[in-house]
Amino acid sequence: MQKRGYFITSEGPEGAGKTTVMNLLGDKLKEEGYDVVMTREPGGIMISEKIRNIILDNEHIMMESRTEALLYAAARRQHLVEKVQPAIDAGKIVICDRFIDSSLAYQGFARGIGVQEILAINKFAIGDTMPDKTILFDIEPSVGLARINAHKNREKNRLDVESLMFHEKVREGYLSLADQYPERIEVIDASCSVETVLEEVYKVIKSQLEIIR
Amino acid sequence: MQKRGYFITSEGPEGAGKTTVMNLLGDKLKEEGYDVVMTREPGGIMISEKIRNIILDNEHIMMESRTEALLYAAARRQHLVEKVQPAIDAGKIVICDRFIDSSLAYQGFARGIGVQEILAINKFAIGDTMPDKTILFDIEPSVGLARINAHKNREKNRLDVESLMFHEKVREGYLSLADQYPERIEVIDASCSVETVLEEVYKVIKSQLEIIR
Repeated sequence: MQKRGYFITSEGPEGAGKTTVMNLLGDKLKEEGYDVVMTREPGGIMISEKIRNIILDNEHIMMESRTEALLYAAARRQHLVEKVQPAIDAGKIVICDRFIDSSLAYQGFARGIGVQEILAINKFAIGDTMPDKTILFDIEPSVGLARINAHKNREKNRLDVESLMFHEKVREGYLSLADQYPERIEVIDASCSVETVLEEVYKVIKSQLEIIR
Repeated sequence: MQKRGYFITSEGPEGAGKTTVMNLLGDKLKEEGYDVVMTREPGGIMISEKIRNIILDNEHIMMESRTEALLYAAARRQHLVEKVQPAIDAGKIVICDRFIDSSLAYQGFARGIGVQEILAINKFAIGDTMPDKTILFDIEPSVGLARINAHKNREKNRLDVESLMFHEKVREGYLSLADQYPERIEVIDASCSVETVLEEVYKVIKSQLEIIR
């Protein structure tokens, strides 16, 4: 049996502050001596980067939603195999910004392909490597969008400009996943200050790390 | 209810003569007045072509087998949506060189990922659009490989140079699929002359087309 690390993912809409908070969490854990790897798909993995380029190419107006879902799963697989899994196997703490739940909430739930169908292709992609703990940054879509609009320097991506109704559906999807996986998914109120959210997240993760040590 | 065409796929190893025979079949049906579309993945569909380029890029030595399987399924989806399905819906006869059974035989069976798993992601990709009839060009791998070697002009691809044992497994996979889908898959002895094989295939397809007319 190989020495095994710990796999954390962060989920939620843009504007919920997850990148900021998780980076601070990573720094804090590193200071405490933990071996932490921060990543997000496609994560500099050549094959995954090229797949992501196909997904994001503005020329590809014909891209069908199931094609897109399969491409996300393919990029996820390669990032997992080349970067996430080796780090976990080496005993590290891996913190990944977005993972399977993003596909379930956005494509399965909000886009209407179906959560079970998206789960099936993603299970094919990730095998047994489900996150040990997932932090769901929950926030009213209107609040998250207002935060994005307040940062004029931040370039808006395709999903930022979707309708508020779409973002309401994504939130509903995320919360139903939290109901379905209560052991794994921890819902955090992301409307509070960065300090408060960080403290909450730190408490959750730290208690888990103490259990496994 | 929309007027619906007829969807034929050809399967089997390289060197079995399927491209030659199916092109002749297409010509014959066109002469008889049928509206025939000949295609093969990625079939000139921009997104599918780009996905296929990622699969075939020799730089991608790190490509993992499940990543590859998801990419094939993604390319298949887009080719289906943009080219195959519209033609079927317009009442045409679509003849496609390789389709879902190639993935099942090569990746599911011979590469050992598992037929059920490959079937699941491909069902996600193609939905209800299974071929109406599939012609399986069955041939001893040693005979097929000898044919390829006899054509010095034909460039060998990555699969041509796999071991004979791999090709034996692919054949076994194909034949077990034919057992599983006896209504859909017609096994043709591809060791005979082109004329004889064409006659066999024509008989099979013609009888089907007469049923649906």
